[in-house]
Amino acid sequence: MTDYAPDPALLARAETLVEALPYLQRYAGATFVVKYGGHAMGDADAAEDFAEDVVLLKAVGINPIVVHGGGPQIGAALKAQGIESRFVDGLRVTDAATMKVAEMVLSGQINKEIVSWIAAEGGRAVGISGKDGHLVTATKVRSEHDLGFVGEPDDVDTRLLDTLSTAGMIPVVAPVGVGADGQTYNINADTMAGAIAIATGAERLFLLTDVPGVLDKDKRLLSDLTPPKIADLKRDGTIYGGMIPKLQTCIDAVQGGVDAAVILDGRVPHAMLIEIFTKAGAGTLVRRG
Amino acid sequence: MTDYAPDPALLARAETLVEALPYLQRYAGATFVVKYGGHAMGDADAAEDFAEDVVLLKAVGINPIVVHGGGPQIGAALKAQGIESRFVDGLRVTDAATMKVAEMVLSGQINKEIVSWIAAEGGRAVGISGKDGHLVTATKVRSEHDLGFVGEPDDVDTRLLDTLSTAGMIPVVAPVGVGADGQTYNINADTMAGAIAIATGAERLFLLTDVPGVLDKDKRLLSDLTPPKIADLKRDGTIYGGMIPKLQTCIDAVQGGVDAAVILDGRVPHAMLIEIFTKAGAGTLVRRG
Amino acid sequence: MTDYAPDPALLARAETLVEALPYLQRYAGATFVVKYGGHAMGDADAAEDFAEDVVLLKAVGINPIVVHGGGPQIGAALKAQGIESRFVDGLRVTDAATMKVAEMVLSGQINKEIVSWIAAEGGRAVGISGKDGHLVTATKVRSEHDLGFVGEPDDVDTRLLDTLSTAGMIPVVAPVGVGADGQTYNINADTMAGAIAIATGAERLFLLTDVPGVLDKDKRLLSDLTPPKIADLKRDGTIYGGMIPKLQTCIDAVQGGVDAAVILDGRVPHAMLIEIFTKAGAGTLVRRG
Amino acid sequence: MTDYAPDPALLARAETLVEALPYLQRYAGATFVVKYGGHAMGDADAAEDFAEDVVLLKAVGINPIVVHGGGPQIGAALKAQGIESRFVDGLRVTDAATMKVAEMVLSGQINKEIVSWIAAEGGRAVGISGKDGHLVTATKVRSEHDLGFVGEPDDVDTRLLDTLSTAGMIPVVAPVGVGADGQTYNINADTMAGAIAIATGAERLFLLTDVPGVLDKDKRLLSDLTPPKIADLKRDGTIYGGMIPKLQTCIDAVQGGVDAAVILDGRVPHAMLIEIFTKAGAGTLVRRG
Amino acid sequence: MTDYAPDPALLARAETLVEALPYLQRYAGATFVVKYGGHAMGDADAAEDFAEDVVLLKAVGINPIVVHGGGPQIGAALKAQGIESRFVDGLRVTDAATMKVAEMVLSGQINKEIVSWIAAEGGRAVGISGKDGHLVTATKVRSEHDLGFVGEPDDVDTRLLDTLSTAGMIPVVAPVGVGADGQTYNINADTMAGAIAIATGAERLFLLTDVPGVLDKDKRLLSDLTPPKIADLKRDGTIYGGMIPKLQTCIDAVQGGVDAAVILDGRVPHAMLIEIFTKAGAGTLVRRG
Amino acid sequence: MTDYAPDPALLARAETLVEALPYLQRYAGATFVVKYGGHAMGDADAAEDFAEDVVLLKAVGINPIVVHGGGPQIGAALKAQGIESRFVDGLRVTDAATMKVAEMVLSGQINKEIVSWIAAEGGRAVGISGKDGHLVTATKVRSEHDLGFVGEPDDVDTRLLDTLSTAGMIPVVAPVGVGADGQTYNINADTMAGAIAIATGAERLFLLTDVPGVLDKDKRLLSDLTPPKIADLKRDGTIYGGMIPKLQTCIDAVQGGVDAAVILDGRVPHAMLIEIFTKAGAGTLVRRG
Repeated sequence: MTDYAPDPALLARAETLVEALPYLQRYAGATFVVKYGGHAMGDADAAEDFAEDVVLLKAVGINPIVVHGGGPQIGAALKAQGIESRFVDGLRVTDAATMKVAEMVLSGQINKEIVSWIAAEGGRAVGISGKDGHLVTATKVRSEHDLGFVGEPDDVDTRLLDTLSTAGMIPVVAPVGVGADGQTYNINADTMAGAIAIATGAERLFLLTDVPGVLDKDKRLLSDLTPPKIADLKRDGTIYGGMIPKLQTCIDAVQGGVDAAVILDGRVPHAMLIEIFTKAGAGTLVRRG
Repeated sequence: MTDYAPDPALLARAETLVEALPYLQRYAGATFVVKYGGHAMGDADAAEDFAEDVVLLKAVGINPIVVHGGGPQIGAALKAQGIESRFVDGLRVTDAATMKVAEMVLSGQINKEIVSWIAAEGGRAVGISGKDGHLVTATKVRSEHDLGFVGEPDDVDTRLLDTLSTAGMIPVVAPVGVGADGQTYNINADTMAGAIAIATGAERLFLLTDVPGVLDKDKRLLSDLTPPKIADLKRDGTIYGGMIPKLQTCIDAVQGGVDAAVILDGRVPHAMLIEIFTKAGAGTLVRRG
Repeated sequence: MTDYAPDPALLARAETLVEALPYLQRYAGATFVVKYGGHAMGDADAAEDFAEDVVLLKAVGINPIVVHGGGPQIGAALKAQGIESRFVDGLRVTDAATMKVAEMVLSGQINKEIVSWIAAEGGRAVGISGKDGHLVTATKVRSEHDLGFVGEPDDVDTRLLDTLSTAGMIPVVAPVGVGADGQTYNINADTMAGAIAIATGAERLFLLTDVPGVLDKDKRLLSDLTPPKIADLKRDGTIYGGMIPKLQTCIDAVQGGVDAAVILDGRVPHAMLIEIFTKAGAGTLVRRG
Repeated sequence: MTDYAPDPALLARAETLVEALPYLQRYAGATFVVKYGGHAMGDADAAEDFAEDVVLLKAVGINPIVVHGGGPQIGAALKAQGIESRFVDGLRVTDAATMKVAEMVLSGQINKEIVSWIAAEGGRAVGISGKDGHLVTATKVRSEHDLGFVGEPDDVDTRLLDTLSTAGMIPVVAPVGVGADGQTYNINADTMAGAIAIATGAERLFLLTDVPGVLDKDKRLLSDLTPPKIADLKRDGTIYGGMIPKLQTCIDAVQGGVDAAVILDGRVPHAMLIEIFTKAGAGTLVRRG
Repeated sequence: MTDYAPDPALLARAETLVEALPYLQRYAGATFVVKYGGHAMGDADAAEDFAEDVVLLKAVGINPIVVHGGGPQIGAALKAQGIESRFVDGLRVTDAATMKVAEMVLSGQINKEIVSWIAAEGGRAVGISGKDGHLVTATKVRSEHDLGFVGEPDDVDTRLLDTLSTAGMIPVVAPVGVGADGQTYNINADTMAGAIAIATGAERLFLLTDVPGVLDKDKRLLSDLTPPKIADLKRDGTIYGGMIPKLQTCIDAVQGGVDAAVILDGRVPHAMLIEIFTKAGAGTLVRRG
Repeated sequence: MTDYAPDPALLARAETLVEALPYLQRYAGATFVVKYGGHAMGDADAAEDFAEDVVLLKAVGINPIVVHGGGPQIGAALKAQGIESRFVDGLRVTDAATMKVAEMVLSGQINKEIVSWIAAEGGRAVGISGKDGHLVTATKVRSEHDLGFVGEPDDVDTRLLDTLSTAGMIPVVAPVGVGADGQTYNINADTMAGAIAIATGAERLFLLTDVPGVLDKDKRLLSDLTPPKIADLKRDGTIYGGMIPKLQTCIDAVQGGVDAAVILDGRVPHAMLIEIFTKAGAGTLVRRG
């Protein structure tokens, strides 16, 4: 009966599809919010990989919502236009001129670029910002030093997102919001993604970044964390710097009802697919505990 | 930057999923009719593989309809009950006693067995026969010698199939129909599957069998055929025996509006997935030409 | 004015229809579960009468669900195949061979026979078992002596029934369920009907049998019972034998939310119609009290 | 086995219900327009019978629309108010004062009386006239002598009727229409009913009157007529007087797409039920031929 | 740039439309019940103005329900027919003859007249009374002296109103109801409108009358009242006579959930539009306080 | 009767609302495409006026779609960033650097500014470009001299617009499209608006500009034009310069199925409302003729 012995390579492919089945069943109709961009946005190949992942999610019945950042690109644009920035404790102050450039880069450049990538893979992406459809009402971030027009989401009205997702489209959201007084605010993209994940009742929040995830002191990946465990790791200094607010976003998300938040290495091709559809998993997953 | 070099094995899996994307997009919402059973029904492992394939199709938005046969099992049951059969030109005559046993085996044993396999993989299978919901009205097959209660589909009312598919369920159909006079008829499962594929406007008809497909005179697989090409192959004797009616079913299907009909080796694990979701393909595909 | 004096026979017919009006209004859209079969399944005339009743219910806006038994037919099939049964306290033990025959008889013979009868009257019947659409998850009945694969409904998922009823179809259910482990179980048809009546929120459970109903010690029909009254009658020996579990099914049903359960003589032509649509009523009706 | 011999009277009732089954199946969802009133409106008993018939139709899934007349009642009201009428060739001229009284009697008295009768039987009747919801636009009837504000339907907008029927309600329509110029017109109730039957695509038009139907020269009922046959009967004088316009309404209806029009004796209790649901039939039925 | 200086008259018109915007947004989809008729029903011009207002409300997404009275017209009809009325404490006793005339005038004359006016402006009005669609079940008003068939709403079933409003139609309701025993009752139109406003969850109840609203002792309009304030004004005699029951209707309405009730001068052209869509307002508005 | 003489100013307001009624009825559910921006975008007051007009349209049941330009703002941004432009026959060549700035200004600045204005008036605006939701597929404009990345709409997929309008939202569209090859193209905003008007089956196309409309040789407004009349005016030199392509857009629109196209002075406050809702009208209206 060797005449129908399967080609091992084809069999392996089939088994990969079959391995995805329980995840397809579990996530049917679920919402996944994906923070992408900034440092994680790489070259054309990486962009294509990312777009394929997002379109594949949509094709199998998951509703992805992409939220993007744009820090490096905003810095480059400011520099190109000769706008000098004031810094407070290492943080750039967002004055009116900076806000204007930031919004143009976020809503007028990066947002539409990501839309184009997804469209190239056959996805029906729609690029919006927190200003559209009353999506995000922001308030100025309170901090020791005045950082200018830096806001945080105060209210998220998900009707536009729901409308687009139900119509088979993929929302791509620039992290810009508007205050009750009409003032435009720049919002941290992780924070924006977290707030949208909570408001839409998402099952997963993915924060794509340019590190492999959270590492322990021996540089080994910590694949599963909970809020208490994170508190321990902060105390003993394992977690520090930029990873602290990122993990706080994860904690807020899972405590706000999101099933799990994952810090993933956006540089790894198809990291999201591996995380979602195989037993192998990837990155650091935070659960309610 | 080698710290984020992807694990090649994981990358291969991701790429398999990505390779499926264009097929997912092309077949979203389509109906696939799958003839399964008889000789192609193998052991528990094969059954699990088959069920996984069907459930995976449903999970990604395709509507599979399974039609099964049961010749060997009917033969065994007749023998076990000591019912002797009369043969005409090598074909078993379906008298009343035989019909009764055939229906019990088809609707009461094989049908529910396939339902159970699919259920075990999380699919919501519903086992029916052509008698249910006015699905198949049959007429007696006209032939030189009287073969008894052997019928062919005269009218297919797809409402029950549509209702089940729309409700997220997977119809599993036993090849039994009822005449206008209430008489029960046994129907060839390939014929039944072909008629259902035409009536439901299916995109694909899969005939799972226990050979690799149509072979040329050098025993190499012919992967792509059209009605004229099939006529040639019949003339020169490449195609003969049981493959002739099977290919006729394929021709009827594609001429009745089905996009393509595929003769597949049901013994190869996940042959359907490979055929549907990879560029490799499998078996012999018949197109309108 | 004698020129328009109505023909008394025609007037009587009209009055019968008018008498049905309040019942039509009361039961519009209601679900009625009807246990039929086994000893109550009679000859072709009785079958036609039964099918007419069921189709009439559907035609006037009631949703009937038929659950059938098949004890005598299973016994005959076992005997025909020379399968000997082991008995414990007079109950047949359902071993693997018996279960296989039972399922073939129930799902492959009786079920489709009832479907055909209903179809002959114009009803769109769909024959299923507890295995289909995840309808009934069963667990092994716990008893003093091991009775083999005899189960009872642990969970009833009504989606398939609702889907069929809403689509204008009439479910016909064989009393077979599947365990969480995939094992097939034979279920008492009365118990199955009762569980389905509770799960679907039925207004009525009809148990068609071959006796006129519950009789008092003077052999007069008791037309109206409640759980306390039944307890009294059990205590004083008026109720005994097979009527005890039947009445327990009725008690469970009404305590599970069914408005009323009725034990009816299935041998009386159109007993169901008389019970439902006339003031005369028939059989023994059990209410919550 | 005499213990379950059915009570013959009960069996007769059941058989009446069963006899209705094919008619229930044929007429499910159909629209029946019933002209009632004028001379056919009798005493309280007759009214109750009529209302039961209408409510029963609705309860079994037919959509009845009642159109009523009111000639005798208008005559009485005019007399009571001392309004004298001018007659032309025996026809009353509808001047402004007459029209005002006619509308009050039709829309303010008879219409609401019929609504009340139907409500008393549990039906949700809604009394309207051709003025409501832009139902009937009328034009003045052209005739040799000016008959005043007597109109005929020029356009029937069925949206209000459809809305009410779909919502489970029973429209009761007074034969009053409005011209494009806002003028109120009295419309012959038979004509109104016929126009509504055509516009709603009704299956049946019933004209309830106070004669047994169309009689031949020997005073025997002619139960089945076609337009050519009617032409013959007119020629030979069998049909004459008021029956001529009534039959013309029937001819117009069937030629306008109504399946059949029936002239029925409204004085016979439940004549409609007998005509619709039994093989006996009643009255004179006109078909396209 | 004077070449595009706006025409002041046109600009004023535009600003009127813009001024309406916040009210359009606030009242989108709301129900407004309007009591009209009796003394407030004026000449043809006034009727046209009223109809325009109602149709405009419907056109901008508000659901108006018109309830009308008809006291003066009933009085005239009784007089014309020579029916003498008995009076008790100045109130006319509604005996059977009076009730019959009242219903004919209300349902057969005024109701259809208002329907015609609205139709003339392009609105799809449907004239009904409390008898239709089981709208209003009434009970006899209890009072010291027997006033005959004068009722008050006991139960309001809004299904007919909801059905008509959803279908884009405008209900026009005559103040007639039916008792549980089938007796017809005349209902005070203000009371009827108030009950309907409560039952439909209306945002506004408008009582159009022939006075400018509630005046203080110096004959100046009181534009805003609350139940406690009304109690004060009753005590000090500012409010007296017919204004007392009218204000009680307003109090009942706002305490029954209606946002506000307004007593408006129906003689002022377009008083409703001014009240609803401009900051100026008109009449006396009663709020919960 | 002077006590209820209406305040003439209030009456005028009411009459303005009533004057709008026939237009509300005619345009219920219609789509209006409005080209706005570039030179017509004025100060904050003008912006507020424009936003009020758009929100008012939406509030009364019309579906507005805003398409904006941005020529002057793009020029300013290029100048600010020191990007020098090459001109051909007076037209700026859109090279890659220019395209990037243009898209940032259009999608990242003007688009979101208009969204904010509309949001401030309570409208649910959603800012997109032709790239989003596969809205506009563009091809390079063919011209004598290569103008770089200047495109014209080749295909308009209205699903995103329909989805947003149906969900109660107001699309605001930046005139940017994407080629089949993924290249970004700048599109003339008038052309973009015209193509969208045709594709959505709009009833009206408004081109807001900074002139009063089309003037005759005596500088008097031509309020009504047809394609043949426009041809005459072109021939005799009355129409010249920038008005020629603008009128061509109007001709294309009405010949493509748009009921009428209007060239309006965007500097006149509420010019759109006056044009739409009053008999006065404004600007130059082009009809099919």
